[in-house]
Amino acid sequence: MKGFFYADSVAVVGVSPSPTNLARAIVFHLVEFDYSGTVYLVGPRGGSFMGHKIYRTVEEIPDSVDLAVLLTPAHTLPEIVASCGRKGIKRFIIESAGFRELGEDRLGLEQEILSLVNKYGMRFIGPNCIGIINKENGLAVPFMPFRNEFNVGRLSIISQSGGVGGALLNALAAEGLGFNKFASIGNKLNTDENDLLEYFLEDEGTGAVFLYLEGISDGRRLMELAFQAKKPILACMANTTEASAHIARSHTASLSSAEEVVQAAFQQCGIQRFVDMRSAMDMIKACHLPAVRGDRLAVVSRSGGHAVVAADAAATYGFQLPPYPEELLHQVESRLRAKVIRLGNPMDLGDLFDFDLFESIVRNTLARDDIDAMLMVYNYNGVFFQDESRMVVGAVKEVCLEMQKPLALCVVTTDEEFRVNRKRHAGFPLFSEPREAAHALAFSRDIHSRKIFTFAEAEEFAVDGNSARQLLGAAVLRGARQLSMMEAFRLLSCYGIAVVPWAAASSSEEAVACARDLGFPVAMKVMVETIVHKSDVGGVLLHLTSEDEVRAAYDHLVNLAKEYGGAGAEPAVLLQQMVAGGIEVIVGGKRDHNFGPLVLFGLGGIYVEVLGDVCLRIAPVARAEAERMVQEIRGYRILQGVRGEPAAHVEAIVETIQRVSQLLMDLPEIQEMDINPLKVFPEGQGCSAVDCRIILSPAQSGR
Amino acid sequence: MKGFFYADSVAVVGVSPSPTNLARAIVFHLVEFDYSGTVYLVGPRGGSFMGHKIYRTVEEIPDSVDLAVLLTPAHTLPEIVASCGRKGIKRFIIESAGFRELGEDRLGLEQEILSLVNKYGMRFIGPNCIGIINKENGLAVPFMPFRNEFNVGRLSIISQSGGVGGALLNALAAEGLGFNKFASIGNKLNTDENDLLEYFLEDEGTGAVFLYLEGISDGRRLMELAFQAKKPILACMANTTEASAHIARSHTASLSSAEEVVQAAFQQCGIQRFVDMRSAMDMIKACHLPAVRGDRLAVVSRSGGHAVVAADAAATYGFQLPPYPEELLHQVESRLRAKVIRLGNPMDLGDLFDFDLFESIVRNTLARDDIDAMLMVYNYNGVFFQDESRMVVGAVKEVCLEMQKPLALCVVTTDEEFRVNRKRHAGFPLFSEPREAAHALAFSRDIHSRKIFTFAEAEEFAVDGNSARQLLGAAVLRGARQLSMMEAFRLLSCYGIAVVPWAAASSSEEAVACARDLGFPVAMKVMVETIVHKSDVGGVLLHLTSEDEVRAAYDHLVNLAKEYGGAGAEPAVLLQQMVAGGIEVIVGGKRDHNFGPLVLFGLGGIYVEVLGDVCLRIAPVARAEAERMVQEIRGYRILQGVRGEPAAHVEAIVETIQRVSQLLMDLPEIQEMDINPLKVFPEGQGCSAVDCRIILSPAQSGR
Repeated sequence: MKGFFYADSVAVVGVSPSPTNLARAIVFHLVEFDYSGTVYLVGPRGGSFMGHKIYRTVEEIPDSVDLAVLLTPAHTLPEIVASCGRKGIKRFIIESAGFRELGEDRLGLEQEILSLVNKYGMRFIGPNCIGIINKENGLAVPFMPFRNEFNVGRLSIISQSGGVGGALLNALAAEGLGFNKFASIGNKLNTDENDLLEYFLEDEGTGAVFLYLEGISDGRRLMELAFQAKKPILACMANTTEASAHIARSHTASLSSAEEVVQAAFQQCGIQRFVDMRSAMDMIKACHLPAVRGDRLAVVSRSGGHAVVAADAAATYGFQLPPYPEELLHQVESRLRAKVIRLGNPMDLGDLFDFDLFESIVRNTLARDDIDAMLMVYNYNGVFFQDESRMVVGAVKEVCLEMQKPLALCVVTTDEEFRVNRKRHAGFPLFSEPREAAHALAFSRDIHSRKIFTFAEAEEFAVDGNSARQLLGAAVLRGARQLSMMEAFRLLSCYGIAVVPWAAASSSEEAVACARDLGFPVAMKVMVETIVHKSDVGGVLLHLTSEDEVRAAYDHLVNLAKEYGGAGAEPAVLLQQMVAGGIEVIVGGKRDHNFGPLVLFGLGGIYVEVLGDVCLRIAPVARAEAERMVQEIRGYRILQGVRGEPAAHVEAIVETIQRVSQLLMDLPEIQEMDINPLKVFPEGQGCSAVDCRIILSPAQSGR
Repeated sequence: MKGFFYADSVAVVGVSPSPTNLARAIVFHLVEFDYSGTVYLVGPRGGSFMGHKIYRTVEEIPDSVDLAVLLTPAHTLPEIVASCGRKGIKRFIIESAGFRELGEDRLGLEQEILSLVNKYGMRFIGPNCIGIINKENGLAVPFMPFRNEFNVGRLSIISQSGGVGGALLNALAAEGLGFNKFASIGNKLNTDENDLLEYFLEDEGTGAVFLYLEGISDGRRLMELAFQAKKPILACMANTTEASAHIARSHTASLSSAEEVVQAAFQQCGIQRFVDMRSAMDMIKACHLPAVRGDRLAVVSRSGGHAVVAADAAATYGFQLPPYPEELLHQVESRLRAKVIRLGNPMDLGDLFDFDLFESIVRNTLARDDIDAMLMVYNYNGVFFQDESRMVVGAVKEVCLEMQKPLALCVVTTDEEFRVNRKRHAGFPLFSEPREAAHALAFSRDIHSRKIFTFAEAEEFAVDGNSARQLLGAAVLRGARQLSMMEAFRLLSCYGIAVVPWAAASSSEEAVACARDLGFPVAMKVMVETIVHKSDVGGVLLHLTSEDEVRAAYDHLVNLAKEYGGAGAEPAVLLQQMVAGGIEVIVGGKRDHNFGPLVLFGLGGIYVEVLGDVCLRIAPVARAEAERMVQEIRGYRILQGVRGEPAAHVEAIVETIQRVSQLLMDLPEIQEMDINPLKVFPEGQGCSAVDCRIILSPAQSGR
């Protein structure tokens, strides 16, 4: 990827002398951004533009070319790509639109280009994008017009939309933060966000990466990159509401729409998500400050009202406000003008007109070991004390940078004054209200404190993999779409997941014998693939306490099985021990087309159905990650024991989550499963599966 | 209040020729804002400033004065207020600080001023505020410096903090929206937010009101004003996190911190709350557009990415996107340049360079009956087509205003171009991203569609008020802090709230007789005031099926009562019918020191304790408001019937909420109560209180 951004020569293909020619904007940009390499223009009509000769083909260019930028009608591209190949150009960017975004019939065109790329060993970005910019060397090839109003910043951007990416660049310019590198990836035919992300994470000029995506190419690779990242990654996923409307039939699936999968995956690997540009900008600003390493915050404000607002914001974002040292308070107090203010944290300095003191307060405070960050609200209206105030802003910035401790500075003033300060202190973030500042500091604290547990950290349990594969193989062979309950229970046992004692019966007397073995009372259930919701049709009978009841139940269930056309060679009736007590939870999982296997945990019954109180992770999950899952649900307190109930054996749930995770990783034949309910007993007494549903992948079941 | 804002003459008291004199800024403002009345300066040292003579006292002023603005040290104020009184000045503003905000010892000073005000029949705003501004006549008296960069707008502002209010004014100036009237209310000693709100709601120049409050003076009056308001009211409550940390002991109280009470009250009376200036600005912008009357939205965008983002935002805020008419799509398609875009809603016009067409698309679309609002994203970078783009922005604005149908226009461009447009179209809101625009439209839709139910609409049930008052009177007389369970049940019965059949027993044999009457099985409970959590100490025995069990239970409970020192004249044991089935909910209430009686509803048991799934309203609640409460909780679906369970008798809950509301309104002796659980039976079978706790007000119980 580096070759794209540090190309020493660029050929712009599609230039014509016509005034409406779009490719001319690319040439304009290379000049505007002061590109340090050589530029060649190419266009079938020849001529010249901005003093450059327009070659008729790339092959006419006398020198070697590092990068070609193509903006010609889609149908002309295969020939142009071929000529690039013949010329030995290894990298190109297709900015033209007119591919799969217009319909399936354009896929052929894409294939043609891909096979040429294959043939000549080339890489390209696009099509349907606005290209890339590297602020370090002025390589700027968008056809969308920009003025070069950007500083060389620390943020690099990957955007699937040119328009949204461009809007972000404008916002960064307005904030005086600039950017380092920018790439618009369009249809991602040959280069996707992961390729660029991998490069940006290594790139020296890049301090943080910003992603705008309308789809994810390879979720698992994205996660692996994020796991290893030493830089903050911010991401906006658009196009989520359509996706979340696709509610899958089955139970687990309906609780884990694509939107929730992305949410879970990003959280798991430490990618910070945002929903709008405003909150993104808070996070971007945080990336331009020294890291926040704790939650002890000192607040100073030049307005009492903003002090109150800042205190609320600090509390909202989980910051503590330790007191200022008495000595400092006395010093400040002695220099107040009207002495009508009481000092604390937040410190209200509305009455302080001794402007040198601000710097010293900040310096003193940032030096303290019991303070992790400062939030300062500096109000002035630019009418009086304009010079002094501008000086304070500059001094405070310098102290923050010098001491390398974070200070979020709100400058509350007129629009004009704000812009003056922003311009003067380009590269240093300024905030306009306390809540923004607190949000940014909290974001920094969280990314620097939240421990990430990678896939590699997931432990592997000793399991009976052979029996599991054999069992699944047989089911696949007979074309099953779903495992029978007996098979499901056996599979769980292979993976060391406890199942409530059970037996299958093929006759009334066998049922009675089983019941005697299991011990009364027993539960009995019909087992027929065609019955999905057993309880709804009377297929579950509980609390059977005598042999007569078992006989009657057997007859009832067998008749039911016949009615639903499912009385075959397999036993149709399952008996289970009735288990008293325990809290019902659900542990499940499914295979996402993009992120692969994922596991789900929640409280059982109506908690999951009505309240949707579940959480997801991408498998394999490490033990600590599984612990987080259990603690994350709203109903966690129920597991800890409420109203005098004993605490549930949480450790057993954690292990079950890990074992389900391993099972899904090991056995690609499984599309979806849920253990619902899993009964969790008091501390030390483990948990047991009461019911389990395992659906096979369509590819596996041959349907 | 009008007299404050439309005073024809103003005396500024506290002016001196010294360059650090703060009151000079007030004089500066009256000039800067072009005040249309007469200004007099007053200061003990005399002299002159800006060509005005400085009188030594207000009484020296030869003419009559409508309004005095006082900015002198706090201790000098009583004498100055007295001289204003003697002079016949009926209104004044105290901007000086140094009152109760510094401590209790300053309360005497406040009292002194209040009695003078009483004596002379005056009104005043402050102290500890920055005064008022009326953009209509230039009456601007803050000592905090402002330049007059504001249009005459439609928003009027009441702010408890000068700093926060000033920041809002700056933000409004930056957005080109301006304001109409501004009042900083400080310590609210004589004039509070309600006085000003009442005036602004009547004031012709005011189209919407914005409140920033750190405390609420009279919640009930605020709600009554909001109920009657024909204009949007936006409010920010600060100082909420300290308040919410005060968790009251008792059950209902702990679920309804002050923060939640404010939240509930504002929602109930239609005051729109916001937490930061950014979201406030979205709402303010909405107040500057024609009202949104439905949820059918048409989106156009000049960037495909923003079209996606806009669609997500539209879905997030509950908008529908009806298709554009085929005819319009064909017309647009025929005029696209590269034909590489597919049209729908959102309509991506990135390829449209026929700039006149934008206006006609907007005009056509706003004219449609099946469209309630438009969201337009207009991207340009100010490099090419700058004039055309600015023209489109202007044309679209005109169509919106002419047709009086709402259009939220995002101009996605450079900071500089954005400001050019903002300046040109002052008074018309411009947005910078789709999410802001969708948020604003949604806010407008919601305030114009949500029906508000006032206190007056609460129905009154026929109840046995005499017996209730008699019962309470007796309890108060004996100094009870809490009603006994029997009293509580009787009180519920007085108010027509069904109670599970019960009886009290004073002897073992009486208990058996009661059990026989009630019918087995029964529950038995200890009744001693000193036992708060009966179940925790074994004071609740359930499912008693025989006379022997009842006898044994009686003995156990009486011993327990003795142990807790509560075996007095009253029966110590309660018997209840065991009620099968039903869903447990909680209906409770308490008396807030500010908002007065409020009612609480939630699902019982762990739902309320662990998940906090409750909702609050200020009493009295109308039927429709009570219905909303039931539908609002997350667990509502449980009441509708899940997993084949019958739907609960929701109507009975609604009536119980109303009856508890009436009970709290009628009986000020009650501080707090909860019916927990209230068992709700299937549709048509009503509900019954199983347990009830009623705490008396400290004033009533004499403690």
